[in-house]
Amino acid sequence: MEQVRIGIIGIGNMGSAHAKMIANNEIDGMKLAAIADLDPARRRWAADQLPADVTVYETGGELIENAEIDAVLVAVPHYSHAPLTIAALENNLHVLCEKPVAVTTRQAEAMIKAADQSDRYFALMFNQRTNPLYRKAKELLESGELGPMKRTSWIVTDWYRSQSYYDSGSWRATWAGEGGGVLLNQCPHNLDLWQWLCGMPEKVTAFCLNGHWHDIEVEDDVTAYVEYANGATGTFITSTGDTPGTNRLEILCDRGKLVVENNALTISRLSQPESEFRVTYKGGFGEPEHTVETIRPDEENPQHAGVLRAFASAILKGTPLVADGREGIRGLMLSNAMHLSSWLGQAVELPIDARLFEKELAVRVQGSRHKQVNAATFGMEDSFQK
Amino acid sequence: MEQVRIGIIGIGNMGSAHAKMIANNEIDGMKLAAIADLDPARRRWAADQLPADVTVYETGGELIENAEIDAVLVAVPHYSHAPLTIAALENNLHVLCEKPVAVTTRQAEAMIKAADQSDRYFALMFNQRTNPLYRKAKELLESGELGPMKRTSWIVTDWYRSQSYYDSGSWRATWAGEGGGVLLNQCPHNLDLWQWLCGMPEKVTAFCLNGHWHDIEVEDDVTAYVEYANGATGTFITSTGDTPGTNRLEILCDRGKLVVENNALTISRLSQPESEFRVTYKGGFGEPEHTVETIRPDEENPQHAGVLRAFASAILKGTPLVADGREGIRGLMLSNAMHLSSWLGQAVELPIDARLFEKELAVRVQGSRHKQVNAATFGMEDSFQK
Repeated sequence: MEQVRIGIIGIGNMGSAHAKMIANNEIDGMKLAAIADLDPARRRWAADQLPADVTVYETGGELIENAEIDAVLVAVPHYSHAPLTIAALENNLHVLCEKPVAVTTRQAEAMIKAADQSDRYFALMFNQRTNPLYRKAKELLESGELGPMKRTSWIVTDWYRSQSYYDSGSWRATWAGEGGGVLLNQCPHNLDLWQWLCGMPEKVTAFCLNGHWHDIEVEDDVTAYVEYANGATGTFITSTGDTPGTNRLEILCDRGKLVVENNALTISRLSQPESEFRVTYKGGFGEPEHTVETIRPDEENPQHAGVLRAFASAILKGTPLVADGREGIRGLMLSNAMHLSSWLGQAVELPIDARLFEKELAVRVQGSRHKQVNAATFGMEDSFQK
Repeated sequence: MEQVRIGIIGIGNMGSAHAKMIANNEIDGMKLAAIADLDPARRRWAADQLPADVTVYETGGELIENAEIDAVLVAVPHYSHAPLTIAALENNLHVLCEKPVAVTTRQAEAMIKAADQSDRYFALMFNQRTNPLYRKAKELLESGELGPMKRTSWIVTDWYRSQSYYDSGSWRATWAGEGGGVLLNQCPHNLDLWQWLCGMPEKVTAFCLNGHWHDIEVEDDVTAYVEYANGATGTFITSTGDTPGTNRLEILCDRGKLVVENNALTISRLSQPESEFRVTYKGGFGEPEHTVETIRPDEENPQHAGVLRAFASAILKGTPLVADGREGIRGLMLSNAMHLSSWLGQAVELPIDARLFEKELAVRVQGSRHKQVNAATFGMEDSFQK
């Protein structure tokens, strides 16, 4: 195979951006072969704007069954991620799925099972894992140089959205359409990075505020407190109502501290592990000495293009993916745990009771209101975090 | 009166530092006239090191009854703040009390009542209110320029303490001796500033971890989530086990944001209130424009000397105190609420049930262990936050 022929299911905000990028030959080894969208206006846009040899389908099922493709990119509302991914894998297609992997961990488990039973790649669009600063942080944490983690705090409130954003799609910000708010739509990136860098906690207490800043039924303001098995603790604060927002991730370890903020990674390194200093120091108010290094990215973050290129290269040459789809369940578990803790008004342990989560979600889906909106497709240039 | 003659009750770490400063004539309008300490070694130190005309007493009660003084500075362990402050006010002495004002809000109420029934000043040693950056933040918030608060997060983990610190006094870090850990000993400053700048929340959920980093029975790691009446939320994270620590206070409002970190105040100002932009903007991913200004302190923080000078000046000339003692109950209410929430494993509403707090505290005091230690007095130069 010289080129991966890809079909894109769903050409809304994200799918159309991906389609243009691939059609413009920006992704080495990848060729746009087909698209599918339920919306006739979007299909017309595709017929007008995309190359003439791109086949246009109405449904994802038709595309999966009939298109001459090697892979699909799933960019539809969240509830359809699982059935389309599974159908594509079962049809021997490689799959790159938009985040979140699914709405519930049981859906994600079914996707993982389908991937395990197939020899195709199952990848996720985690385009923040390509950020050089987070990659450097991951390297440092994995090297063990900084010792075990003691605390992490992520204030990630730079996901501002106006009411017009929410009003642009009938499925947006509804339990029935998205299965959640900021946790399901904006934060999958951050929750994935958080577990990628810090591992999974074992206990989550969260405070999700629904429609706190917007006229929506799902959460747009979340504060979560988590506890890890080794005694470390963490907080995660997010919102779509804050501007100017903050994006500051701090990870404190026994031998140093990382802070990612304002496009810089600040690394503090202790001269001695804190756990050793703590018990050997004999004075009154001392602390171990430390040095501080600030790193700025040495390359541009390739974002979605980077994920697409790695996906093509994996299929063509067996090189690594940016994110294996199987890993998507971890960030989703965090998100589900935050919802469930908030719904129950108590701490929940991980792994969560997935059936209880689905039961509680179903109650909310049942009460979900139907929105009358003027559907709109926006340019995505300003929508994701650099 | 030309000079305030002051007696210091307790010349441990803090009291001895204050005594030296006053004896060195660093506080205009204040003269050190007497000290009291239960510890014979400290009284010997006072007799040796302080001016010959400073009268030395054994107990605070003797000093209050007999010394020729106008005011007292109470710098003894927390449980004695209330009885000594009340006794001094009833003896027509002005009182400057170390933080925290007391251990329980009922004690603080009794102190306030004594102050209300007296014509003497009742002041608190809140030496961080003199920080020019917090003063500027206070000015800005009070001016209304930034609009109502929406969120506040304070990560204040730069209170690192080694085990040797805790081992230096038998009363340290015990329920019976201090009534708490980092919340009662280190954080009264921050909790006071937090309420001073952001007002009081109406609901508190906290996670206090006891002896998490040290061999102590009280909390040395705290994460709290609070909700304000107007819908704003906040987090407060503190620890004595983190190094290098963080001290970053963020306050987001409808028209801008303040961040105090690394001895700078960063002020972001929106071109339009967010609450207005949110509903009038018609595009997809926009947010209001904002400007950023960074302010560094234009003067040194006078710290304890500033509080002492203001106390003397208030008595001599009627000028304002840095912090009226009556305000101390607010930060203490926050601290008590965090403890109580953690003990009960649930959110608590403010004002807390003060009797329930005392009952729960009594259980812990009863189980308090007796420590055998080699008592030590440390220089305080590195002990407080600049």
